[in-house]
Amino acid sequence: LPSNFQRDSFDVVLVSPRNPLNIGAAARAMANFGFARLAVVAAFAPPWREARSAVGAPEVLANAQEAPTLAEAVRYCTLVVGTGTVNYRKPEQRVVSLPALAPLLAEELARGGRVALVFGPEKHGLTREDLSLCHLLVEIPTDPRQPSMNLGQAVAVCLYEVATRMIQNPAQPASETISPPTAAVPSETLDLLTGLIEQTMQAARYSPASMQAANHHDLHLLLRRLTLSKGDSRRILGLFRRILWRLNRKPAPPITEDDGPSRQGGMR
Amino acid sequence: LPSNFQRDSFDVVLVSPRNPLNIGAAARAMANFGFARLAVVAAFAPPWREARSAVGAPEVLANAQEAPTLAEAVRYCTLVVGTGTVNYRKPEQRVVSLPALAPLLAEELARGGRVALVFGPEKHGLTREDLSLCHLLVEIPTDPRQPSMNLGQAVAVCLYEVATRMIQNPAQPASETISPPTAAVPSETLDLLTGLIEQTMQAARYSPASMQAANHHDLHLLLRRLTLSKGDSRRILGLFRRILWRLNRKPAPPITEDDGPSRQGGMR
Repeated sequence: LPSNFQRDSFDVVLVSPRNPLNIGAAARAMANFGFARLAVVAAFAPPWREARSAVGAPEVLANAQEAPTLAEAVRYCTLVVGTGTVNYRKPEQRVVSLPALAPLLAEELARGGRVALVFGPEKHGLTREDLSLCHLLVEIPTDPRQPSMNLGQAVAVCLYEVATRMIQNPAQPASETISPPTAAVPSETLDLLTGLIEQTMQAARYSPASMQAANHHDLHLLLRRLTLSKGDSRRILGLFRRILWRLNRKPAPPITEDDGPSRQGGMR
Repeated sequence: LPSNFQRDSFDVVLVSPRNPLNIGAAARAMANFGFARLAVVAAFAPPWREARSAVGAPEVLANAQEAPTLAEAVRYCTLVVGTGTVNYRKPEQRVVSLPALAPLLAEELARGGRVALVFGPEKHGLTREDLSLCHLLVEIPTDPRQPSMNLGQAVAVCLYEVATRMIQNPAQPASETISPPTAAVPSETLDLLTGLIEQTMQAARYSPASMQAANHHDLHLLLRRLTLSKGDSRRILGLFRRILWRLNRKPAPPITEDDGPSRQGGMR
């Protein structure tokens, strides 16, 4: 089972769960496998109230955090892992099978990171928007004839796997490696960077308004793929602040029919 | 996920489940992880009916076997594995932690055996009597502060582990080993042997009636510890049939105060 250190750096996040029994089951599995930090995103009030007031509800529920968006729930996390079956379309991030997950998490925790394991709503799982906030997707290997798991059972299986195999495959503590890897930046820094780059795109008239949603999405994925260090993100933030200031100092020229090659472009 | 061969030699057994949602969840986990053979022992009629008639109930439930006793449900199985937390008293069998279970099961299946994984009722788990029919106990490593798992989640975690790791650690097929291990005998043979030995004990006036239940229990455990081959059990059956026939041929002498040293003994 996880050490106190691991347990304090590991968040379980439920996005809009519908069934109070599933919320209770998720919390119970957390208690069974020694996890303590639960966050619920955009909770539907009635099931959330019912789950918290259930007889024998685990302490984990009383201490749960509530957040309006997934971005807010994972803002301090350096590795956000989305769960679900991804066989219905081509995933945009790296996908690992659950039996291969624990060493990756152990490594992230060993270098001082903080991990979130995110579960979507019962019916349809995580949205494309929510998935774009994940660095990594994890898939539970299931039978293609019945791939979809019950939420409470999926949480139990994932936490069992992580709790059991993080201990069996402990990553080298940072102090013992020759060049200690630096911790990744938390999600809130990536969100800051996303906002600044988007402002810069707009100020530079990089692409038409119709492309903004697609660019926003691609930017999410790109920034998570880069695994920026704190130094990287500080330098990039500084650069884009400078660019934005320059762009805003003199008004942009009016749009003409021939507005240069980048005008129609997206990030793809 | 398990091969067709593994799947056909693997039974999941629920003993007297109380909650139809748990029965449904257990069946769903079986479908998720590619298992097909479910048996329910001493089912309470209302929850069992409700689970089977639920909307979207997995096919596994429609095909489930019903048995009045655990002995009957596992009569063809050569390796019966009981589940549960065993920390409340000293276990009488070998206990393995769930992460170490899959290689043992793969080995048993590879030598032509048949495995049962047995789950007790929600409240109190498997009784001492039911446990005495198990060759092996498996324990899910949980936090001592909240050791007891929900039944549906426990089934999901066990089947995930077995399905995922039986493939990763396939046992050598019997044909490739130099001296192929013979399959163990099915539970029904052990039950036959138990009954015959008990008759012999009584005919020999081995111990007073007050010791019979304890001896019955110890005999269960002993016979499962021995991992008898078919030849072994045939020879033992033959020997005890002969002894019993001899004992019954001339009436036993009346009991006296001094009835020999074995008279007060149990098997312990």
